[in-house]
Amino acid sequence: MKIIVCNIGSTSFKFQLLDMSSEKLIAKGYTERVGSPDAIINYWQGDEKVFSSTESIPKQGNAVKHALDFLLNTGIISSLNDIEGVGFKTIQAGDKNGSVLLTGEVLNAMEEFRDLAPAHNPPYLEAIYMFMELLPSAKLVGVFEPGFHINAPDYAKVYGAPYEWYEKFNVIKYGYHGASHRYVTGEAVKILNLPAESHKIISCHLGGSSSVCAFKNGTAVDTSMGFTPQSGLIQGTRVGDIDPFVFPYIMKKKNITLDEALKECSKNGGLAGLSGISADMREIKEAVKNGNKRAKLARDKFIYDVKRYIGEFAVIMEGVDAIAFTGGIGERDIELREEVINSLSFMGMIIDYQKNRNNETVVTSKLSGIAGLVIATNEEIVVARETVKVINKQAQMPK
Amino acid sequence: MKIIVCNIGSTSFKFQLLDMSSEKLIAKGYTERVGSPDAIINYWQGDEKVFSSTESIPKQGNAVKHALDFLLNTGIISSLNDIEGVGFKTIQAGDKNGSVLLTGEVLNAMEEFRDLAPAHNPPYLEAIYMFMELLPSAKLVGVFEPGFHINAPDYAKVYGAPYEWYEKFNVIKYGYHGASHRYVTGEAVKILNLPAESHKIISCHLGGSSSVCAFKNGTAVDTSMGFTPQSGLIQGTRVGDIDPFVFPYIMKKKNITLDEALKECSKNGGLAGLSGISADMREIKEAVKNGNKRAKLARDKFIYDVKRYIGEFAVIMEGVDAIAFTGGIGERDIELREEVINSLSFMGMIIDYQKNRNNETVVTSKLSGIAGLVIATNEEIVVARETVKVINKQAQMPK
Repeated sequence: MKIIVCNIGSTSFKFQLLDMSSEKLIAKGYTERVGSPDAIINYWQGDEKVFSSTESIPKQGNAVKHALDFLLNTGIISSLNDIEGVGFKTIQAGDKNGSVLLTGEVLNAMEEFRDLAPAHNPPYLEAIYMFMELLPSAKLVGVFEPGFHINAPDYAKVYGAPYEWYEKFNVIKYGYHGASHRYVTGEAVKILNLPAESHKIISCHLGGSSSVCAFKNGTAVDTSMGFTPQSGLIQGTRVGDIDPFVFPYIMKKKNITLDEALKECSKNGGLAGLSGISADMREIKEAVKNGNKRAKLARDKFIYDVKRYIGEFAVIMEGVDAIAFTGGIGERDIELREEVINSLSFMGMIIDYQKNRNNETVVTSKLSGIAGLVIATNEEIVVARETVKVINKQAQMPK
Repeated sequence: MKIIVCNIGSTSFKFQLLDMSSEKLIAKGYTERVGSPDAIINYWQGDEKVFSSTESIPKQGNAVKHALDFLLNTGIISSLNDIEGVGFKTIQAGDKNGSVLLTGEVLNAMEEFRDLAPAHNPPYLEAIYMFMELLPSAKLVGVFEPGFHINAPDYAKVYGAPYEWYEKFNVIKYGYHGASHRYVTGEAVKILNLPAESHKIISCHLGGSSSVCAFKNGTAVDTSMGFTPQSGLIQGTRVGDIDPFVFPYIMKKKNITLDEALKECSKNGGLAGLSGISADMREIKEAVKNGNKRAKLARDKFIYDVKRYIGEFAVIMEGVDAIAFTGGIGERDIELREEVINSLSFMGMIIDYQKNRNNETVVTSKLSGIAGLVIATNEEIVVARETVKVINKQAQMPK
């Protein structure tokens, strides 16, 4: 079964074409600057780059069409009918959650939640509509990011807001980064050969967007992101946890609206806002080395938030077997992992400095009571597997 | 030195008259329903109730005058000049923080922060102005609740909001319950005979209003409340931690303003809102016993939040010597303490069921790696001591 999986941002379109009998990558593409006359397009066949150009890609739909034309023209597929399904790493459709066929009902829910996921739902919808047009016989599947967190206990998902908001308007901690946390926790279980029904893992997805997830005995039991991906850890340009009563105060002080205040948080907040330098941790680290105080504050706050959530989740799971690091920062920030792991030595976690410096898979000592792991995430394979599952289930249903 | 300390709510006025040479209570009073024609007034001389009546107390100023008249008329003091100072457990005056003489500048700051502490700053100001009028020679001292948290590291106090909000508008985690956490952590050090320069304590003030505080080597290093007392744990009628991006969503859904949404949180949120029964944990517990699901959700969420913060603070302090429980819930909710302490057994905390059931001071086993304490808080004595400190320091200053 040939499957396309899509990871779409407000100005980017990424896809992979996978043969799911072997889970092998057939081709992949990355289009940057969607919406501009100078979009940058790169395509690979297997691991070899075979196409590169700069051209006008006004909309996500054009990026989709361009990619399918490439697959056909190069003979990578002989017909569009070869593609049995398309899986999308979708973000938010309220209670239409989990891995589901993109029916009219689900697409309507995605339309309704445009405001809540302004960087994601609109471009996803654009791309989905184009796939529906060009691949009318393929099954389109949404693998909604909060789906991974759907079985967390109610008391972990509920806020102390009015009960009506919870019951009627689904105001809960949805959680995100589902595909990544699913992949990383699955790998952690395999790598450490942990029993399927008895393990406690904390997955730290740290990158431009960051979240921490508690995974106990096969279920995600809590995560740092909430109703939206804005909360939890401080992130590249996201505010993270903040007292909402800050807003009426700042609105008065600055004479701005709530929308303006929230936009300020997304534009001038997070690591970029605090550091005044960049949303990119590598640049912040450089600035810290050069003695920049705001960069140090931003980095310290980020590491502090990671520790905070590890603490929370260790206690709510009553222990932890492994802490896994993934994402751009998680996979490469040696000093960050060192600082986090060393702060857990009181719980019996012991770093292996050499292995950590080499970004090895296991970065803790054999004597460590908690394993430290570095795992390159693979969200695409999770989306592809979930897509196949939904298609197979669909095929078994009575017509 | 005779000192009055005041603890003032929106409709209540509590005072104690203390002889600070011995820290002995001379008299105390409690006026409920301030602002009504049927205010309930009770006064004690030492521990003996000597006055009780129901009469009209339209404003805090009237409660103050009534109390001073009582002290004079009964001969408890021979002259108003006997009172050298008045200490107030004040809440919020922005960067006018700590324990300070209530100068015009500080009072102006309190006026400016009326909106941020609507239940506290206005009645405190009313009472303070009356004391200034009636006791012109006494020193009036504000012991601001966030003062205890003033030395927490910047990275623990900062939000991921725009830097301007931090630098120019002092948007930080202020923290509250300062007098209580100061008392409880001080007592914990004494009870366990911990070295002054090396201890790690988590103080849990759990009552109608609740917060958790991390106290390391003599300094409060973090706390659950933030810019306002609304955040952190879910509380009686307070929302606790919540993703602020809930608000634009709910405002649209319900067609309400931000102020209305926040007011809904304060009125219909917290334990009261979630349980649909009461803000009082005793009533919630009763309902849980009778199988009420919302009551169970509210109680579970509260206990979950307590555990979350204990986890955070254990990790950021890199260990913990003692966890102290205070406040109405902390001092009396045996099952809650049991559940919290047992969840920490993986960290070596071992409950003593008998001692816990008896609400003894130490409720953990001698073998426990973390001591569990039950301490009745005494905010008044902290405010009185701070008041004396400020007065003595003032007296030493060159005129």
